[in-house]
Amino acid sequence: MNLILLDPKQMLSDLSYALSERQQTHIHKVIKAKSGERLRVGVLGGKIGEGIYEAETPEQPAHIHSVVLSAEPPAPLPMTLVMALPRPNMLKRTLQNITAMGVKDIYLIHSAKVEKSYWQSPVLKPESIHQCLLEGLEQAKDTTLPKLSFIPRFRPFVEDQLPALLEEKEGLLAHPYQAKPCPINLQKPCVLALGPEGGWNEFEVGKWLEAGMESVQLGERILKVETVVPVLLSRLYPA
Amino acid sequence: MNLILLDPKQMLSDLSYALSERQQTHIHKVIKAKSGERLRVGVLGGKIGEGIYEAETPEQPAHIHSVVLSAEPPAPLPMTLVMALPRPNMLKRTLQNITAMGVKDIYLIHSAKVEKSYWQSPVLKPESIHQCLLEGLEQAKDTTLPKLSFIPRFRPFVEDQLPALLEEKEGLLAHPYQAKPCPINLQKPCVLALGPEGGWNEFEVGKWLEAGMESVQLGERILKVETVVPVLLSRLYPA
Repeated sequence: MNLILLDPKQMLSDLSYALSERQQTHIHKVIKAKSGERLRVGVLGGKIGEGIYEAETPEQPAHIHSVVLSAEPPAPLPMTLVMALPRPNMLKRTLQNITAMGVKDIYLIHSAKVEKSYWQSPVLKPESIHQCLLEGLEQAKDTTLPKLSFIPRFRPFVEDQLPALLEEKEGLLAHPYQAKPCPINLQKPCVLALGPEGGWNEFEVGKWLEAGMESVQLGERILKVETVVPVLLSRLYPA
Repeated sequence: MNLILLDPKQMLSDLSYALSERQQTHIHKVIKAKSGERLRVGVLGGKIGEGIYEAETPEQPAHIHSVVLSAEPPAPLPMTLVMALPRPNMLKRTLQNITAMGVKDIYLIHSAKVEKSYWQSPVLKPESIHQCLLEGLEQAKDTTLPKLSFIPRFRPFVEDQLPALLEEKEGLLAHPYQAKPCPINLQKPCVLALGPEGGWNEFEVGKWLEAGMESVQLGERILKVETVVPVLLSRLYPA
C-alpha cells in the first residue's frame, strides 16, 4: 500500500475521510504513523496528494483530514487486455499486477483450455475482485479503477464485440506459432489477447486472426502467465 | 516442466537416462505420457532434443532412451543481476522467474533494508536453491544453470568485486530518484542492481554511484519485486 486510497463513500466532510479497518491496520502496523503525520493519499477516481492522519480516540474514529489533492494519477496504458481466465490461485495476483501496471480495460474470457470450474471460484465474486483491483492501485499509487468484464462465451465476443474494440488499435495475439516478434515500444493503442496455459486451440486462433488480430511471439523461452504479463506490457509500452 | 531436464548423473548408458521421482510424477500425472512416447528432453549443461519414454516395469526403472540432442538451448541474457535478498516467501518464485528469463549470473546481496533473519531461511539451503533453478530451466526449456552467489556483506562487494564485473558493461542501478529512464533494448551487456522493498539507503546509493553505476527509473508506478524483475529484463533485452 504505497497510497491510502480513499473512496468518496468514506468522506466525512469536505477535506476529511474515515479510514477502513484495513487502512487503519496498515497505517498502524506497516507505516507505523502517529496522529498528526502527513500521509500520501488518493481519492478513488480522482487525484493524489496528502492528508493528515488522526488515530482513533474515544471522541472520534480514525480518519484523514486536511486532504490536499495536487497531482494526477500515473498515466494509464493505452491498451485493452483480453486474457483467458487464469486458474483461481493465479487470478488475484494477476489482476493486482495488471492493475498496478496501469491496464484500464480488462476482459477475462473463456477458452477451450480453461477449466469450467474456474468460473465457479469464489475469487470471482465482485467483492473479491474489487479488493484485488484496489490493492493493485494502492501498490502503484494509482486511483483509476480498471473496467473488468467477464466473458464466459468465447465465440460471441470474438465475432461480435472484438471488431469494435479493434477500431484504430493494433490487434496482437500472443501465440508463438507462425508469429512475428512482438513489437517493442508500440507507440499506438492495442488490443492484446493472452491465452491460457497450453495456449489457444486451433479454432480459437483462427477466430482471432479472422477478426484481424496478428500473432506475435516473445522468443524461445516459455514463461508463466505471471511473468508473461509484465514482460509483454513492459515491451509494448516501456514508457 | 516444458522439458525433461536430464542430469548427466542420471545417465544409464550412452543414449539412455534414468528418471527422477519428480520427473516420473510429472510425466505420469501432467503429460500423461505412455511407454514409447517421444518427449522433449534436455541435458543439464548441454543441448535439447527428444527421447523415448519407458514407464517402470518389474524388469527396469522408468527411463528415457534413444535420446537425440539436436538444438542449442535458448540464448542467455547478457547481464549480471545483483539483487537485494528478497524475503524468503518471494525468493523461490523470484529465482525461478529470473532463471526462466535467461539470467546466468546472479548475486543476492545484503542491504540495510534486508532483514537479517532472511539469511537464515531454509530456502537458502543449496538443495532448495538448486531445485528453484532447475524449475526455472524446465519452465523455459533451457539447460544452462545460472551461477548464483550470496553476498552477505554489501561493502566489500561494491568496493572490491563490482569494478571488475563492470568492465565493458553498462552499470544500471534501479533507483527512482534523480534517475534517467531505464534504457529500452540496451544492445550491450549490463550489470543491473535491484534494491529491496523500500529501496537502497543513501549510503548504498552513494557506493553504487561511486563504483560507476547510473540510476535508472521506470516511471511513476511502484511495482512489486516479482513484477519489476520481468519488467526490467524485458525492457532491457526484449530480444
